[in-house]
Amino acid sequence: MDWLQTFIQQADMKHAFKQASVGIEREGHRITPDGDLALTPHPKKVDGSTTAFYIQRDFAESQLELVTPPSYTSSEVLEWLQAIHEVAIESLDNDERIWPYSMPPKLPNVDQIKVADLEDLDAVAYRDYLVEAYGKQLQMISGIHFNMQISPEFIGKLHQELVEKHDDQRSIKDFQSDFYLRLARNFLRYQWLLVYLFGAAPVADASFYRDKNDTFEQGPVRSIRNSHLGYVNKADVTFTYDNLEDYVAYLEANVANHHLIAEKEFYSNVRLRGAKKARSLLTTGIKYLEFRLLDIQPDAPYGIKASDIDFMKYFILYLIWSDKDSNMDDVRYGIEIKTKVAEEGAFDVTSMQAEGRALLADMQSMLEAIDADQAIIDVTNQMQARIEDPSLTPAAQMMTAMKDIEGYLATGKNFAEKVFQSAWEKPYALGGFEDMELSTQILMFDAIQEGYQFEILDRDDQMLRFSYKGHQEIVKNGNITSKDPYVAHYVMENKVVTKRVLAEAGFNVPQSLEFKDIDQAMKVADLYTDKAFVIKPKSTNMGLGISIFKHGANAAEFKEALEIAFKEDGAVLIEDFAFGTEYRFYVQDGKVLSIVNRIGANVVGDGKSTLEELVALKNQDSKRGHDHRSPLEIIALGAIEVNTLKQQGYDVSSIIPEGEQVFLRENSNISTGGDSIEMLEAMHDSYKEIAVKMAETLQVNITGLDLMILDIDAPATDDNYALIEANFNPMMMMHIYPAFGQGKRITKDLLQFLYPEKTKFTGGTE
Amino acid sequence: MDWLQTFIQQADMKHAFKQASVGIEREGHRITPDGDLALTPHPKKVDGSTTAFYIQRDFAESQLELVTPPSYTSSEVLEWLQAIHEVAIESLDNDERIWPYSMPPKLPNVDQIKVADLEDLDAVAYRDYLVEAYGKQLQMISGIHFNMQISPEFIGKLHQELVEKHDDQRSIKDFQSDFYLRLARNFLRYQWLLVYLFGAAPVADASFYRDKNDTFEQGPVRSIRNSHLGYVNKADVTFTYDNLEDYVAYLEANVANHHLIAEKEFYSNVRLRGAKKARSLLTTGIKYLEFRLLDIQPDAPYGIKASDIDFMKYFILYLIWSDKDSNMDDVRYGIEIKTKVAEEGAFDVTSMQAEGRALLADMQSMLEAIDADQAIIDVTNQMQARIEDPSLTPAAQMMTAMKDIEGYLATGKNFAEKVFQSAWEKPYALGGFEDMELSTQILMFDAIQEGYQFEILDRDDQMLRFSYKGHQEIVKNGNITSKDPYVAHYVMENKVVTKRVLAEAGFNVPQSLEFKDIDQAMKVADLYTDKAFVIKPKSTNMGLGISIFKHGANAAEFKEALEIAFKEDGAVLIEDFAFGTEYRFYVQDGKVLSIVNRIGANVVGDGKSTLEELVALKNQDSKRGHDHRSPLEIIALGAIEVNTLKQQGYDVSSIIPEGEQVFLRENSNISTGGDSIEMLEAMHDSYKEIAVKMAETLQVNITGLDLMILDIDAPATDDNYALIEANFNPMMMMHIYPAFGQGKRITKDLLQFLYPEKTKFTGGTE
Repeated sequence: MDWLQTFIQQADMKHAFKQASVGIEREGHRITPDGDLALTPHPKKVDGSTTAFYIQRDFAESQLELVTPPSYTSSEVLEWLQAIHEVAIESLDNDERIWPYSMPPKLPNVDQIKVADLEDLDAVAYRDYLVEAYGKQLQMISGIHFNMQISPEFIGKLHQELVEKHDDQRSIKDFQSDFYLRLARNFLRYQWLLVYLFGAAPVADASFYRDKNDTFEQGPVRSIRNSHLGYVNKADVTFTYDNLEDYVAYLEANVANHHLIAEKEFYSNVRLRGAKKARSLLTTGIKYLEFRLLDIQPDAPYGIKASDIDFMKYFILYLIWSDKDSNMDDVRYGIEIKTKVAEEGAFDVTSMQAEGRALLADMQSMLEAIDADQAIIDVTNQMQARIEDPSLTPAAQMMTAMKDIEGYLATGKNFAEKVFQSAWEKPYALGGFEDMELSTQILMFDAIQEGYQFEILDRDDQMLRFSYKGHQEIVKNGNITSKDPYVAHYVMENKVVTKRVLAEAGFNVPQSLEFKDIDQAMKVADLYTDKAFVIKPKSTNMGLGISIFKHGANAAEFKEALEIAFKEDGAVLIEDFAFGTEYRFYVQDGKVLSIVNRIGANVVGDGKSTLEELVALKNQDSKRGHDHRSPLEIIALGAIEVNTLKQQGYDVSSIIPEGEQVFLRENSNISTGGDSIEMLEAMHDSYKEIAVKMAETLQVNITGLDLMILDIDAPATDDNYALIEANFNPMMMMHIYPAFGQGKRITKDLLQFLYPEKTKFTGGTE
Repeated sequence: MDWLQTFIQQADMKHAFKQASVGIEREGHRITPDGDLALTPHPKKVDGSTTAFYIQRDFAESQLELVTPPSYTSSEVLEWLQAIHEVAIESLDNDERIWPYSMPPKLPNVDQIKVADLEDLDAVAYRDYLVEAYGKQLQMISGIHFNMQISPEFIGKLHQELVEKHDDQRSIKDFQSDFYLRLARNFLRYQWLLVYLFGAAPVADASFYRDKNDTFEQGPVRSIRNSHLGYVNKADVTFTYDNLEDYVAYLEANVANHHLIAEKEFYSNVRLRGAKKARSLLTTGIKYLEFRLLDIQPDAPYGIKASDIDFMKYFILYLIWSDKDSNMDDVRYGIEIKTKVAEEGAFDVTSMQAEGRALLADMQSMLEAIDADQAIIDVTNQMQARIEDPSLTPAAQMMTAMKDIEGYLATGKNFAEKVFQSAWEKPYALGGFEDMELSTQILMFDAIQEGYQFEILDRDDQMLRFSYKGHQEIVKNGNITSKDPYVAHYVMENKVVTKRVLAEAGFNVPQSLEFKDIDQAMKVADLYTDKAFVIKPKSTNMGLGISIFKHGANAAEFKEALEIAFKEDGAVLIEDFAFGTEYRFYVQDGKVLSIVNRIGANVVGDGKSTLEELVALKNQDSKRGHDHRSPLEIIALGAIEVNTLKQQGYDVSSIIPEGEQVFLRENSNISTGGDSIEMLEAMHDSYKEIAVKMAETLQVNITGLDLMILDIDAPATDDNYALIEANFNPMMMMHIYPAFGQGKRITKDLLQFLYPEKTKFTGGTE
């Protein structure tokens, strides 16, 4: 197959060859903070139904299965894996954690171990059978399943080459299946190498063993999971990877003869994927392969590291590249030595060292030939070192770290604790995607939790596409959706039009005059000599160029304010001043979901601490950070703050009396350290009704309305409130994570709005 | 009422007092190019139904009534009046024009004069009665009706003042009606002044007179329309403006006694408005007044000038300001002298000169007191001059201009011709609103023509609000509407996402790779050594930073192109080049409405003319202009064009062989003189189906899709076309006014899309 390597080395094929996609399934048990297996049900905070996409249940009720979507780069796989782990961990009840090893934690009495409590009765029956056939303990082992699809473009071009130059008559579908079958056979032949390199199940707690004599004499091994004590079908199960027809026929015969209860009981380290039933593969062809032999890596917080994924991927590509073409005898030999290597002493040089050396050296040649990144060459170097020095293998490293078998449970518990703490460090963020907007991160968090599938269409653009039972919705920047009309955004962007439309509908809106030059504007100056009003640029967003006169202005003041405003915009508004306190109403689909009052950066005295100390204390809140990477901002003590204090007769060393609130900023922006305070429950309902009707009038479904309100306890009248601004794409974070009061999870409301057909998520499967 | 003037002089009241709104109704007969009364039906191109808002029919089938919406400034009224006139004129069949005078053109035999052919049978019966009672000729007189509403805020504050400080017990509604009744009485008392100042019906064609003896001995008068030969009720019609109850009672009694066939037969120069039936006014109150005495001004292309409107408005305000409080005796006297002044010789000093002087002097005092603009003070000065010198009045001016009565028909015909030519000068623009975007102008044109009501919500923002039977729709920039989802705009803005979404759905889209730095991008350089491709910034709109390689590029060329692209944007796309010709598909609501091929600025030789001459000839097309103020742009002969010619071996003095097309630009932009060519009918239907499905996939209703197509005659295959770009808010002008081919009136399709409930407009009332 020399021609194949030549073919792959063409510029475009080299690129396509490397474009394989990878998806990871990571199994892991929930444990209590004490390290015991959790006996609680699947967490209610995640969608436990079978349509859930990222967080599922495996064999046992305590066993989570975390599934990433297929991705082209290991770093993307890792981002998803981290994100899904964080959601899973933050969704656990009673501070449960995830057990970090393939071999289970200390198991309780087998009667206490519950198989997964699934809706699907067949799925439950299957699990009951497994308990019967293999024992509950065996089923409690966890692993990493590695799904990999070779670029369809590559396979297509390769097929074309074969048809055109090598007189191949096969259809693309048949060719693709044969292609994957050869890869499967090669993999099964050489899988021992991965067991050696990634084996990470050297010991197990005594509670794992059904038979006390099952322990290994040689002490810690490489992988109990891949040993004869792991998943091994009974001897009467026959199989072949020779061709797809026979593969299907054998599998069906095993089921017919009751050697297997179902096709999926066939424990092979390679599964052919593309259809649920084996027979359907004859129609669909093999679409990708699932490699099931990887142990959970003990140094990877999320079960596998990016470099491990890269090595796996390139090793599998190498099995395509190489001229090896294993037959079924080779396969059977491969399975045999896989078990043998798994059972070798963790610190012993492997009996297969020579073949291992040769394989990795050959793989390095391929990496060079296809211009692989230096990173994967480096990783392969490290694997070569593992071949030479068994103490570098994960199994040996585990044993070294935990000293003896007694340390197994303790180090497992500690590592679980570390991952748990890291997930909870910033509960408002979604690890793996922290470069994205916070509101988008939370929306993704909720989608993972509630069982929606989604893709990131554009990461810089904060554009997501959700999918649930075929219904797709695109969401940008947290709440830009298909639910709002295109033109409504421009209506809200135009302050004059917004207010005109609302005023026509009878709402109280400060009267506003628009001018394009100072001379025209000066003609109305005498209207404002003893009236509260504001002069501001037409299209600035709360900030520069605004002058407020609470008791009128004379002609000179009026002119100066106009000049300031005209510096910012060619059109200036002169607007009646609205008295009261400003509240942001978050409206969605005819409901007010949250109402937030924003107040400037401030501290409350305790009669003992200095201002500086009070600020430092307030800044300890984990919700405070810098540059919009957290829901609230750190309160600064810069020139502006010091000056604001000075005007109140304070400096940073002043001790503030107990209960006294001192403001460090005159503006109420969250971005300068201000607080948001949730007021939904406190607000009189009449204002909520007004906000809902305003949104209706603007023909918009999602909006943030800024209302000035004189008294939130008193019912609304014609003029005790005023609309200041209607905002499209309104900020979400201040509602989800206010400084005070119960945050409102408006991201969940958004998903519900987009998917009314999905039963409102109430938790659990009951 | 001294206190009233003091009250008005307060700063805020001064402002409110001047905030009266005005609407104009202008009647005018359609005439043939020869100046004869048109005997054709109401133009089919305008909506002739009774819901039509701006263009209606008056008494006769030939008599247009053009109605402006209420506006606060005379310039806005004039803009509307011009726009409505232009639409009316451009909608006329057989090059008909509008007769410019109040007195009709030469009338045919009365049997040939048709009363308006309205759907409403009662309306037709009423007209038949009028013919019977007054003769057809009288009903052929046209005029200007001046509707004016005093600021409700002013009336409200005035009422408040009366209640609080003058112990007035009236409700606001009763007060407002009394307020308008006093104004009506004062107006009727002093209306003679307006007849003197604006009388413009000195003579009539002989065909007007039913009785040959009806002509005036004194020769040309001021206003036949306001004379005893004009609209005058029979002597038995009684009336009062004393109070609203009696006004209604008298009017109803006239109808009951058959002195009037209907309330509207009551010919008064003031009508109380606010309800259709007089009795309803008792419930609604009087909302505004209609002043009906103005003759069509012979020097105003649209029947009345802005300065006339201003004078009318401020004269009416003066009748409020002044301490006059005419009673019904005064009113009867006022009507008497109005007729008398109307019948005075056009060049004679009026018998009422002294009162006129006093009125205008008093009005000037008011203008000063309320800080009126200099413009209205100047206009009032001119009116004072007319009082002193009758030859300055419109009636006298008309007589001077047309020398004798024979000139009446000729000057009328000539003036109609001038207005006609001016309307047709730029049929793609809407006079009065030429500062707005062309597509918005055309949309407004069509709305006027098709009987939709609309307002300009924001002129700079090109934001319109349409209304039809209570259904409102906002449209911005021609086709941003409520029909498209908010997020779709962002999907189309993002080239990568657009193409990904379309490619997933199976459409042929050039493969595109996105990079954020040169080093990463250079890694794929070898993919493009012998492939046609484009390197471009991710988010530029066709222009800077684009490099095209039709035959691949070496690493150095590749890198240089990347550097150029990265200068424009932080993200760069490397995209397969799509061969073929580019077509813009304009898609709306599942239909392709137009397909335009854009080609660069070019001329076609005739074997005689030089390039310079050919360009000059092509630039004579009235559709070509500068700066997007016309559908196509003037072709320049600047450095770029000269250089493009040079590369083809030409200069501006070259004579081009007959039939040879020479391009002056390599780019195909309309903005640099390119041509658009309509191709809808020529394009194979399969591409239209693809475009419709693409819009569906993007979940957008209105879009402009740029497709590269190899052969528009051949059916689409998987790869003989490619989507280049999907555009939101796509340009409309190139479809409506292409350089070649039949333009598609997509603005009309838009109205139909927004208002599916409105019967598709087919023209006429049949």
